[in-house]
Amino acid sequence: MTTVQQPIALIIGAGDHLGSAIARRFAREGYHIVATRRRGDLDTLVSEVEALGAGITALHSDARDEDQVIQLIDKVESELGPMSVVVFNIGANVPCSIVDTTARLYRKVWEMCAFAGFLVGREAAKKMIPREQGTIIFTGASASVRGSANFSAFAGGKHALRALAQSMARELGPQGIHVAHVIVDGLINNEATKAFLAEQFASKGEDGVMQPDDMAEIYWQIHKQPRSAWTFEQDVRPYAEPW
Amino acid sequence: MTTVQQPIALIIGAGDHLGSAIARRFAREGYHIVATRRRGDLDTLVSEVEALGAGITALHSDARDEDQVIQLIDKVESELGPMSVVVFNIGANVPCSIVDTTARLYRKVWEMCAFAGFLVGREAAKKMIPREQGTIIFTGASASVRGSANFSAFAGGKHALRALAQSMARELGPQGIHVAHVIVDGLINNEATKAFLAEQFASKGEDGVMQPDDMAEIYWQIHKQPRSAWTFEQDVRPYAEPW
Amino acid sequence: MTTVQQPIALIIGAGDHLGSAIARRFAREGYHIVATRRRGDLDTLVSEVEALGAGITALHSDARDEDQVIQLIDKVESELGPMSVVVFNIGANVPCSIVDTTARLYRKVWEMCAFAGFLVGREAAKKMIPREQGTIIFTGASASVRGSANFSAFAGGKHALRALAQSMARELGPQGIHVAHVIVDGLINNEATKAFLAEQFASKGEDGVMQPDDMAEIYWQIHKQPRSAWTFEQDVRPYAEPW
Amino acid sequence: MTTVQQPIALIIGAGDHLGSAIARRFAREGYHIVATRRRGDLDTLVSEVEALGAGITALHSDARDEDQVIQLIDKVESELGPMSVVVFNIGANVPCSIVDTTARLYRKVWEMCAFAGFLVGREAAKKMIPREQGTIIFTGASASVRGSANFSAFAGGKHALRALAQSMARELGPQGIHVAHVIVDGLINNEATKAFLAEQFASKGEDGVMQPDDMAEIYWQIHKQPRSAWTFEQDVRPYAEPW
Repeated sequence: MTTVQQPIALIIGAGDHLGSAIARRFAREGYHIVATRRRGDLDTLVSEVEALGAGITALHSDARDEDQVIQLIDKVESELGPMSVVVFNIGANVPCSIVDTTARLYRKVWEMCAFAGFLVGREAAKKMIPREQGTIIFTGASASVRGSANFSAFAGGKHALRALAQSMARELGPQGIHVAHVIVDGLINNEATKAFLAEQFASKGEDGVMQPDDMAEIYWQIHKQPRSAWTFEQDVRPYAEPW
Repeated sequence: MTTVQQPIALIIGAGDHLGSAIARRFAREGYHIVATRRRGDLDTLVSEVEALGAGITALHSDARDEDQVIQLIDKVESELGPMSVVVFNIGANVPCSIVDTTARLYRKVWEMCAFAGFLVGREAAKKMIPREQGTIIFTGASASVRGSANFSAFAGGKHALRALAQSMARELGPQGIHVAHVIVDGLINNEATKAFLAEQFASKGEDGVMQPDDMAEIYWQIHKQPRSAWTFEQDVRPYAEPW
Repeated sequence: MTTVQQPIALIIGAGDHLGSAIARRFAREGYHIVATRRRGDLDTLVSEVEALGAGITALHSDARDEDQVIQLIDKVESELGPMSVVVFNIGANVPCSIVDTTARLYRKVWEMCAFAGFLVGREAAKKMIPREQGTIIFTGASASVRGSANFSAFAGGKHALRALAQSMARELGPQGIHVAHVIVDGLINNEATKAFLAEQFASKGEDGVMQPDDMAEIYWQIHKQPRSAWTFEQDVRPYAEPW
Repeated sequence: MTTVQQPIALIIGAGDHLGSAIARRFAREGYHIVATRRRGDLDTLVSEVEALGAGITALHSDARDEDQVIQLIDKVESELGPMSVVVFNIGANVPCSIVDTTARLYRKVWEMCAFAGFLVGREAAKKMIPREQGTIIFTGASASVRGSANFSAFAGGKHALRALAQSMARELGPQGIHVAHVIVDGLINNEATKAFLAEQFASKGEDGVMQPDDMAEIYWQIHKQPRSAWTFEQDVRPYAEPW
């Protein structure tokens, strides 16, 4: 028996600024949000979403763990209701020369970027296929389409995620499931990038970096598309970004 | 002295169903529409736009003719006001084996797809650069990113247009001009495709082909993006399209 | 009645260092060379090829002129014999801001890069199709796959040429014609680049820039490939080139 | 103390027809071959290489196991001598719908395609960097650049391998190491494809599928390139292949 009347949006990786912004964007449209991250604070997001008048279920869950992903999605569907949209928003870069990249690092980056995306994508597809509808959106990066010095691990994980998204889109599109891939290219305005890349950040000015709320709009628009006009891939960068 | 208080959208190639739909989409947001096509009916579009309560200036103009493009854009800016957004929506495919493609055909397809796009893009840029704002959107096709048997001319023209869009985006982005490229992949629902590809059309059903109004939404969303989160490229196809 | 017993290689654009090197490479394999350029010296190349013990027919011909291309290829086939391989090696870049690019410049760059390639490719295909064999190789650049600021014209022409090559390869491959595209990325060692980019050149050292003879080897290897293992596209750059 | 005077070629994945052909190609140039596969026959290859008058060291080794890769490459360098060229030629496709793809399958395909490539590439780079020379070639597939229905796992692994190759090429090129990626697109002539795809195979004829010896030539040519003219990426397919 499901308890939620609103359409449901599952955001995997709701811990960063983009993930939170996506959650708030769907909340503003009246969606019930299911927000997960591996660990760390989710209370801020819960308050933000509730302040928008929407419901939210916040959970800690490790998307790289098959059992946890299966249980999470089973639980959402059985206790809350059918998912309208699933956003996979996980992935972290640790720039490193090829010769210094440990097997552990290479594997962990892939698990986070691609393997977790596979688990989430597959489980979401299983639920959506019988209903012949639903949206699955994956967050990519410029490393999704270009390898670079010191990016062997991250580019590998992100390329693999894009291949997953494209393969799923081609398989599931004709079955009514909208699979999309957003290529994020540039600095996102948040505390981490502000601290880590202070100089670059300062030189660009406020809208020379990406505002999470502006990026989140793209996810909402993709989800809203009727099936006669679906976008598979869309890039996004701030105006001042060289590319 | 300008006579229009509303923001202005110039649609080059407003004669087909997509061009008309884009015009109506911006009209619904209160834009004054300037709609051009080389020849043929524009009265229907004028009625549609006026029925939406928006103003429209409809003109016949050949976008492949440098003088006409310069005069058109000068006239818009001097008589109506500054253009907020320019959409270049011209290009026609005539499938033909390489050995049967005449020089005349090859040249005409390029003039329509790429040379006209260059003229419109350049003139629009000249007006927008001093204002450090404005949007220029080019309509592409799957032939923009892939050559195919019997597509030498069309793929050549569309590849060149994409190169133009990408070059302009990289040059003009940091100057505040948003240049974007929409890759249209699939049949558009209109009389021409219905007649020309009747069987394919019938087998797909109504939303197995693209509805112009749904596609037009993408142009509006791109234009609306704040400069902290700009899309350069976005594809669009119906759910049932193999790709 | 044909007068040449050797296989024939037609090099369109034999005036630059790469074109000359390709001519010498095929000459070393005993090919009779037909070398064309629009105007300027061809005597040096004639001497070089003859010193290698090969025959050469050097002609001034404008590859952008349909009649000249048709006549050239008819003449080669009727007076010398069937062409084994045709190399199209024309194209010049004039970096220019989009707003300063004249219609004349935009058109001329396209005519040189793409339209001339179309004429040569089409006429070569007409001769080769009935024989179900032959190789056609087009020279591309990094601008063939990427637009950049100030490269609207050149990227447009080179993108269009790549679309032509890919379309022809897909159409003509199954008919036994090998169509290929070589992407040249980096400085070529010659007087022009030495003078024009003296500093960059000096900083890279002799093999930090491309040696035409080394590049020419690629064209020979592509031509030599049996039809069970054909390359369509191959990039080439010096080891020190950032990309 | 090294015992081999000849240059050394290490072929990882010498068990299939392409791997064997590459081994023979380098053997014909007088290279000492080190051929590895995980398990199964290597005696045939040993005989073939010895019949060509070249030396060969054949070893069973699992390229997905970090310790084994480190030991293998240490052993080659300490007991035989410095490696001139390393070819990574592993990867297997198991087409499978996304919903039926087990986590085990998804992980194993990645380990074989990408993780093993990372281990081999990294260890090879460590040895080659101090010498400022050496070639590392990775075998890709059409799935390296395109996702497809039922190819989530294989396209993911192959995309990740390409990202690795491109990242390594950009990092190691300026250090004198030549990293390249060969995109194999089409059926390879061997018992497995003959049995598995008998009909397709028969319809294409002998040179409608790829002959391993013809493909191996590409690896040799890449390795032979002087550093003034290096290829990073090259595709290869039989003439009759639709693409």
